[in-house]
Amino acid sequence: MALDNSPSTATGYIQPDIDVRALAAVLDGEYAGIRDLVRSNLGTHASVLDEADELGVDAFRERVREIVVEMAATGQTGMGFPAEYGGGGDVGASIAAFETLAFGDLSVLVKTGVQFGLFGGAILHLGTERHHETCLPRLITGELMGCFAMTETGHGSNVQALGTVARYDPARQEFVVTTPDDRARKDYIGNAARHAELAVVFAQLEVDGRSEGVHAFLVPIRVDGEPAPGVRIEDDGRKMGLNGVDNGRIWFDGVRIPREALLNRFADVSPEGVYESSIENPNRRFFTMLGTLVQGRVSVGGAGVGVAKVALAVATKYGARRRQFEATSGAEEQVLLDYGLHQRRLLPLVARTYALHFAQDVVRSHLHDVFSGIEDDAQARRRLESRAAGLKALATWHATRVVQECREACGGAGYLAVNRFAALKSDSDVFTTFEGDNHVLLQLVAKGLLTDHASEFEDLDQLGTVRYLTNLAVETVIERTSAHKLLERVRDLLPGGDEWDQEAGLRDSEYQLAMVRFREEHMLAGLARRIKRGIDQKRDPGAVFSQVQDHVIALARAHVERLVTEAFVDKVRAMPEGDEKVALALLCDLFALSTIEADRAWFMEHGRLTVQRSKAISREVNDLCRKVRPVAVDLVDAWGIPPEMLRAPDLVG
Amino acid sequence: MALDNSPSTATGYIQPDIDVRALAAVLDGEYAGIRDLVRSNLGTHASVLDEADELGVDAFRERVREIVVEMAATGQTGMGFPAEYGGGGDVGASIAAFETLAFGDLSVLVKTGVQFGLFGGAILHLGTERHHETCLPRLITGELMGCFAMTETGHGSNVQALGTVARYDPARQEFVVTTPDDRARKDYIGNAARHAELAVVFAQLEVDGRSEGVHAFLVPIRVDGEPAPGVRIEDDGRKMGLNGVDNGRIWFDGVRIPREALLNRFADVSPEGVYESSIENPNRRFFTMLGTLVQGRVSVGGAGVGVAKVALAVATKYGARRRQFEATSGAEEQVLLDYGLHQRRLLPLVARTYALHFAQDVVRSHLHDVFSGIEDDAQARRRLESRAAGLKALATWHATRVVQECREACGGAGYLAVNRFAALKSDSDVFTTFEGDNHVLLQLVAKGLLTDHASEFEDLDQLGTVRYLTNLAVETVIERTSAHKLLERVRDLLPGGDEWDQEAGLRDSEYQLAMVRFREEHMLAGLARRIKRGIDQKRDPGAVFSQVQDHVIALARAHVERLVTEAFVDKVRAMPEGDEKVALALLCDLFALSTIEADRAWFMEHGRLTVQRSKAISREVNDLCRKVRPVAVDLVDAWGIPPEMLRAPDLVG
Repeated sequence: MALDNSPSTATGYIQPDIDVRALAAVLDGEYAGIRDLVRSNLGTHASVLDEADELGVDAFRERVREIVVEMAATGQTGMGFPAEYGGGGDVGASIAAFETLAFGDLSVLVKTGVQFGLFGGAILHLGTERHHETCLPRLITGELMGCFAMTETGHGSNVQALGTVARYDPARQEFVVTTPDDRARKDYIGNAARHAELAVVFAQLEVDGRSEGVHAFLVPIRVDGEPAPGVRIEDDGRKMGLNGVDNGRIWFDGVRIPREALLNRFADVSPEGVYESSIENPNRRFFTMLGTLVQGRVSVGGAGVGVAKVALAVATKYGARRRQFEATSGAEEQVLLDYGLHQRRLLPLVARTYALHFAQDVVRSHLHDVFSGIEDDAQARRRLESRAAGLKALATWHATRVVQECREACGGAGYLAVNRFAALKSDSDVFTTFEGDNHVLLQLVAKGLLTDHASEFEDLDQLGTVRYLTNLAVETVIERTSAHKLLERVRDLLPGGDEWDQEAGLRDSEYQLAMVRFREEHMLAGLARRIKRGIDQKRDPGAVFSQVQDHVIALARAHVERLVTEAFVDKVRAMPEGDEKVALALLCDLFALSTIEADRAWFMEHGRLTVQRSKAISREVNDLCRKVRPVAVDLVDAWGIPPEMLRAPDLVG
Repeated sequence: MALDNSPSTATGYIQPDIDVRALAAVLDGEYAGIRDLVRSNLGTHASVLDEADELGVDAFRERVREIVVEMAATGQTGMGFPAEYGGGGDVGASIAAFETLAFGDLSVLVKTGVQFGLFGGAILHLGTERHHETCLPRLITGELMGCFAMTETGHGSNVQALGTVARYDPARQEFVVTTPDDRARKDYIGNAARHAELAVVFAQLEVDGRSEGVHAFLVPIRVDGEPAPGVRIEDDGRKMGLNGVDNGRIWFDGVRIPREALLNRFADVSPEGVYESSIENPNRRFFTMLGTLVQGRVSVGGAGVGVAKVALAVATKYGARRRQFEATSGAEEQVLLDYGLHQRRLLPLVARTYALHFAQDVVRSHLHDVFSGIEDDAQARRRLESRAAGLKALATWHATRVVQECREACGGAGYLAVNRFAALKSDSDVFTTFEGDNHVLLQLVAKGLLTDHASEFEDLDQLGTVRYLTNLAVETVIERTSAHKLLERVRDLLPGGDEWDQEAGLRDSEYQLAMVRFREEHMLAGLARRIKRGIDQKRDPGAVFSQVQDHVIALARAHVERLVTEAFVDKVRAMPEGDEKVALALLCDLFALSTIEADRAWFMEHGRLTVQRSKAISREVNDLCRKVRPVAVDLVDAWGIPPEMLRAPDLVG
């Protein structure tokens, strides 16, 4: 029997009736073709989900390698490489493929990312024709396996301080690569423990006794399956998850590589030992090199969204069939998803997943345009790097939170390994800290905002940025972000004049956007003022920055959430009229209002939310949950997750 | 070089200097002896942490059984049983032992809980002398292994609706136990897949064609290692974690057991087939039986606190030695825990862990008093059950959150299995849903508050409770919780009269207590009014309850947080003057204020926090973090976790 908890019909509200295929087409967008190829490949290799549980670490690593190579043969993993070397020549498609691959086993995903994204991407973007010709054709097929040896035990986040050294020996026209101490050993390097023959090694380049900063080199680390002379490799051993990826540690003991092994797109050393670079400033050079690797963050962010989708698909389907407790006398037990609490737990997460999906679309397009030369200037690259960093952080934290909530929402059944949660939880956990620790990434985002993405920023290291803040930028930011100007802009768009934040309809997208924009601008101005005050008091800039770090993180979050909200609103506006648009509009409101609700304390503290309106937003979120409930299963079906990837026959069956 | 981020010294603040051993003695309290025994046993069997990674599932299960039996021989696990059967006769000590055991491998912990807590506890509390004599001596040593077969695939939370049937056959004076369908198979039962010989089976008792509700029976399920006739057992297979515990499914196909196999403390069937019970009302009888098993929830809550301690000990020690990024020019890289953000991430969690520790002390004492007959009446039992349910929920969610935050705070290093996080995360995950799903438990807590723990509550099932709310209780609650009365009480305690919430010092415990008390009372009154309004409008009580479910959960949380705050404040007040008291007072303030801060939106919405004061609380929390920072390592050392249990040599070393 139906409970009286359907949304009020007094307002003439008509429930949308979703065409799942039509909605799926909206979500897949221009990359439906490559996504379907990946779905088909996932289906072909579906047994890997069982094998992850059943095989020992060694056998599972081999199995994952095998699958990666087989997938490579279908063209799936080479989309990002130029056609002339056997690639697909479509950067956007390569990201879309990776996002879709995240529906499956995550060791396969991460090994794919290591081989084609990190290793292949570094050679593509930091190397030149000589490296491309010798490496790309063989690495695209998976014949040449490699690794990306950047992180060291002592340095993960602060890459500029790496300890590995590559000293140029003009007599023999070779570099000598050395690990000076154990803190400088390469660590957590995927593909290193077993499969990599070649490594892209990041090291401090020394030429003629002078340090030129971190550069990348091609170093053979394994010959016929054995470590190359002078190379020591140690297995990182079992990890929380991703045990199909062979992470390891590498030490170099005076390993000699030819002069041509320097990936020399941005800098080179002449045979005689003269260092030359097209980029004068060392910091700018370093960040330019790093910037070419931005696709890694875009990929991981997209994978986070994919992981969230799998978890939510399982939990939503379970919630729509599992019954527990009689709700009304004499009735059958009630379906979980008809409980208000259960809706509250899952449906805002579905909405946020949609929001992140559309934000990922924007970043992927941006990446495609920059790396296809469609829109490629320094400003565009900075914006892309900031967006990629911010979205990676929010999407991967979202994945962690969603997997946890969904597991709990499936109770004890969700704890069995035969369901997806065990693997999702342990495998995706590291997403929040690899390809950049999320907190460090958000600080980068905030610094970009504080310095207004000034081009000077490129020339600054960590400490330099702090110093820079003492100068021009903060003043400019304070000026630019005056709440007054923002409010003027809002006033033109919303009814109510100065009272816009009291008068506008809660479900008016302009209201929602005005709120998240106000928050960001206000936080930015406030933070800039606080830093300026500290500096004016002659306090140590590092200490000032440390004390406002929580504001820094809050600002970056607010910034990314504004971008995500805009992406969702834009998407809905651009859709043709119809039930799918109605459904996504509900979901967009649910996302925007639950986002505002989550930070309602801030809005009240800053005069943008009255107590009454704050409570009204919570009621509206509840009402939206009830309206989304009837289409919840359609919404998760539209993600097009291959059924085998949901596993969990007892939960979703 | 020291950064200028130490707390302001202008106020004459003197940093406390903690004596770790003295603080440890405060924490261990009266159970130092048993805790030290467990610590010593953990050290003896420390290799289990490696074995959990290295052994296959089968071998690890055997190893865990072996360790549990060896620990039993030291007297550690039998503390809760009467001395006459070989136990220690000290209920409180048995919980303290379990809490301490949570520092180690959690498969060992959970198998101990299954064998001695669930299986042994059910026989002790639901059985009578005949069961005690035949079972207790052998189960206390671990010679007789058993399981607790309550949960079914179709019913976890709603235990009253179990499907397994035990029909009395007067002709042969036997019960016939049957699993009518697959939804009624016993599932996720620890010890079932491998080691249990005997099961305590919960089944619907049928006598003379009449259903008498759920009762417990002793059913042999394994003879000489093989399933007993009529018993089918299936392995639940690999789980997310706890793979040293052999969970399984059990079906019964007309299994005959003697009449004496009914655990007959509260009800019996005569040889002729007449049902009799000292408790007339079937619901009350059911909840009385369940209530005797409350120690399970007290144990799991305590284990959650233990898990949080281990994770925080690793992350705090790592944060106090790991350096990354130069903070000031020319300086060494900065220690993570000197960053404001890192303090914000970890130190409020340390404070909350201390708070939960002291709240657990209160519940454990309460349990001890009730089960030792020191204070045992219906009211005391109800209060204990509510406290145990609420604290279990908050402590286990806390553990999940802490493990995640701490893993991330240790970066990639935290992801390696050689550290504790992988095991802690996957093993403790299920704590939030076993021994009662946390959301269901919090609803129980809230219902207790709504019905004022009226004795009539005991006679009501789920649906009956909702109906009950339509009557007397809600009116009474509304009357009792008038904000007016509470404010009158507060006014006498705090300066400022009606302006107490503006005038009192933020670090005044009476202010903090008044805030959390006000929140609870206000939420309770508001919820009661909303339910009454729905009922008055003749809406379906089930639907009304479903719509206010998020308020129900919020109320229960507020209630438990009030109890936790009181426990911490009381503890600090009772301590002798000295540096340990000063340090714990800082920590207590940090806990109370960060708790208020986390819910500051609610306090603003309900007129108890101005915008200015809300911001002041956030500043105070930051300042408290800086004050706690210098003693952070001492604070985690005082938990007395055996060093081997921290593993992670590279992190804490």
